[in-house]
Amino acid sequence: MNYNSMDEANRAVLDKIVGSAPFLVDVVPAKEKIKELNEGKVILHAGPPVAWENMTGPMQGSCIGAALFEGWAETGEEAERMLANGEVKFIPCHHVNTVGPMGGITSANFPVLVVENRSDGNEAYCIMNEGIGKVLRFGAYSDEVINRLNWMRDILGPTLSKAIKLTEDGLNINVMMAKAITMGDEFHQRNIASSLIFLKEISPFVVQVDMDDNDRKDVIQFLADTDQFFLNIAMAAGKSVMDGARMIEAGTVVTAMCRNGYEFGIRISGMGDQWFTAPVNTPQGLFFTGYDQDMASPDMGDSAITETLGVGGFAMIAAPGVTRFVGAGGFDDALKTSNEMTEICIDHNPNFSIPTWDFQGACLGIDARKVVETGIEPVINTGIAHKDAGVGQIGAGTVRAPKACFEKALEAYAEKLGLI
Amino acid sequence: MNYNSMDEANRAVLDKIVGSAPFLVDVVPAKEKIKELNEGKVILHAGPPVAWENMTGPMQGSCIGAALFEGWAETGEEAERMLANGEVKFIPCHHVNTVGPMGGITSANFPVLVVENRSDGNEAYCIMNEGIGKVLRFGAYSDEVINRLNWMRDILGPTLSKAIKLTEDGLNINVMMAKAITMGDEFHQRNIASSLIFLKEISPFVVQVDMDDNDRKDVIQFLADTDQFFLNIAMAAGKSVMDGARMIEAGTVVTAMCRNGYEFGIRISGMGDQWFTAPVNTPQGLFFTGYDQDMASPDMGDSAITETLGVGGFAMIAAPGVTRFVGAGGFDDALKTSNEMTEICIDHNPNFSIPTWDFQGACLGIDARKVVETGIEPVINTGIAHKDAGVGQIGAGTVRAPKACFEKALEAYAEKLGLI
Repeated sequence: MNYNSMDEANRAVLDKIVGSAPFLVDVVPAKEKIKELNEGKVILHAGPPVAWENMTGPMQGSCIGAALFEGWAETGEEAERMLANGEVKFIPCHHVNTVGPMGGITSANFPVLVVENRSDGNEAYCIMNEGIGKVLRFGAYSDEVINRLNWMRDILGPTLSKAIKLTEDGLNINVMMAKAITMGDEFHQRNIASSLIFLKEISPFVVQVDMDDNDRKDVIQFLADTDQFFLNIAMAAGKSVMDGARMIEAGTVVTAMCRNGYEFGIRISGMGDQWFTAPVNTPQGLFFTGYDQDMASPDMGDSAITETLGVGGFAMIAAPGVTRFVGAGGFDDALKTSNEMTEICIDHNPNFSIPTWDFQGACLGIDARKVVETGIEPVINTGIAHKDAGVGQIGAGTVRAPKACFEKALEAYAEKLGLI
Repeated sequence: MNYNSMDEANRAVLDKIVGSAPFLVDVVPAKEKIKELNEGKVILHAGPPVAWENMTGPMQGSCIGAALFEGWAETGEEAERMLANGEVKFIPCHHVNTVGPMGGITSANFPVLVVENRSDGNEAYCIMNEGIGKVLRFGAYSDEVINRLNWMRDILGPTLSKAIKLTEDGLNINVMMAKAITMGDEFHQRNIASSLIFLKEISPFVVQVDMDDNDRKDVIQFLADTDQFFLNIAMAAGKSVMDGARMIEAGTVVTAMCRNGYEFGIRISGMGDQWFTAPVNTPQGLFFTGYDQDMASPDMGDSAITETLGVGGFAMIAAPGVTRFVGAGGFDDALKTSNEMTEICIDHNPNFSIPTWDFQGACLGIDARKVVETGIEPVINTGIAHKDAGVGQIGAGTVRAPKACFEKALEAYAEKLGLI
């Protein structure tokens, strides 16, 4: 490594994060950007690598939905057989510049948000948010779910693509996030303000797209109704920023955190593409009426890329409105959570000043060394899926990243550097 | 009075406020709703009654702009002569179910927001927000200003009228405010979230209005760009709610606070329509580059109806992002301000829970007795106009309502009740 100290290496990684310039530049079918999706039946999933038999119920449900959506199978049973007998290849989203919420299931014809990180010239992708209720990402695959995906493929995606192109320059995601973090968003469980800001930015252009008036009304209505629409934009942005930052292959900055419902995986800057995994925890939180903790699926999704970027649970203080939703207490508890997270981070991000934190910037740079030293595990705000396929979201809560991942990463890095 | 105690009377007033149901139901030319505007040349202004010669520069500038907009005069000089020689009748907005920001200048053909308070069946009106920069409400009257007013009359107003009618039920303003107060708005100097929420609610209907596509694009773009658009909606809502509440003609609850640049005026529930006035203060705050405190116009506008409702400066803690803009310090100062205001209020409003205040409701019911007893004068967040006509906004800050108004109101009420 070409740095005089670990701190200097980490600083170089942080400089990349602070200097990042993620722009939303397009929405395209996933297969246009991810060549692997054109090579037979392929499904991307959240988290580190996982085999079909180790996937949770909801992730398997999502895979069934993808097989139905792609027309590989006519029925859920047929899809399930195909998935179980090895006909479908599984690849982690993270391996192909992609992130996916919850199951993270993405196949060839899903429209994906295209985010270009202009500071480093790299791109990242994420499917669009489907809204709430019965949705694929939580494992539902009824006709309602597939019909919505068809509409997103045929109407929403192409419309947003055209509208974004009319903006000429794309949409500056850091600017939208800087505004929204002053408006109660933490970009994981609360994206109300940022979704409105996205609507404000894009609607003048959607109005100019040459298209059917009813379809236009449906697009505007969907964006107006979908409070979490920005989550997936923030995820793609976070992926593009952290992938830019990890071009610095040195240091102990955490560059990815993700979960597949079986294992939690992290990457650190000094160890490049390598995953360090440990058994995943199950989120604790509040449940919708009729559901309880026993029904909760273990933690899953690439959405912890938001916490990796220093927002999500780390920015709980920016979003006291979400603390009650995830069962994390009141304002003082939100403050306590964010303050605790500063103990495992290196600095504050001047891009994202948080008024409710007396204008301190969001957390910047989780240092794997600090996680191990303090024993403080990163907090993640998350949705909670039912453990069975087909049910969907049953609550929201928080979960911790297992310390063992960080220990393994440090050990491997020490070995790589010849320290042990 | 038919109440056993002053506290019981005040509680009846507060019950009206909490039980209010303000809905945005239309946008129409002012003359359609305010019959007085059809009786010759008439101009409405902010604050308690004031003569032309006592109006501030910016309020006079606004009057000149209204005369040009109405076609009563061809030039500013001609308009000024007409206004000075008594050809134009002045009426306070508050006397005709109306409120107006800054100068508050409103004439026959201004489009006004129509808010219906369904709990009491009364209506209130307010012109629409023109955006920032050179705008009539701050005293500018150049061609740019008049052209924008023409566009608002011809395109924006009629479009919003049609769109609101398509919603069938109108837009529930308490619901929009309840959301936005969790997103950093205090509804006086910060209406970013609520303006976005309004955009989100109305845009699916604007898309359905049968109209020219370029005009539609302009409307959506204007609403997307106008961060303070909701201020005027909140003002009309506040007026409708407080006018409903003051149907209870008893008690010491403040039912209006307003300023005309010359005098500050208040009303209390027990004294009906009567104004209690004192010389107005000049706001202190932060100034745009090139301007300073010496150039500030004395305080003006009916926008203090937001503070009367318990938001605005009273809800500073909901909007720490605004505290720096108005020069009121950081997060702790915002907390201190809101906590101080609880000392002159009777209760908290359960409609408007503030996460940053550990989910306490906004202030509810300024008690004139408490203002006099504690000597704590109500704080108001406000824009600052240049004292000369035609310049416009030069900053933003805070100002206090003079205690003398409250003393006079209590004295008059004591006399009415035969107590002195």
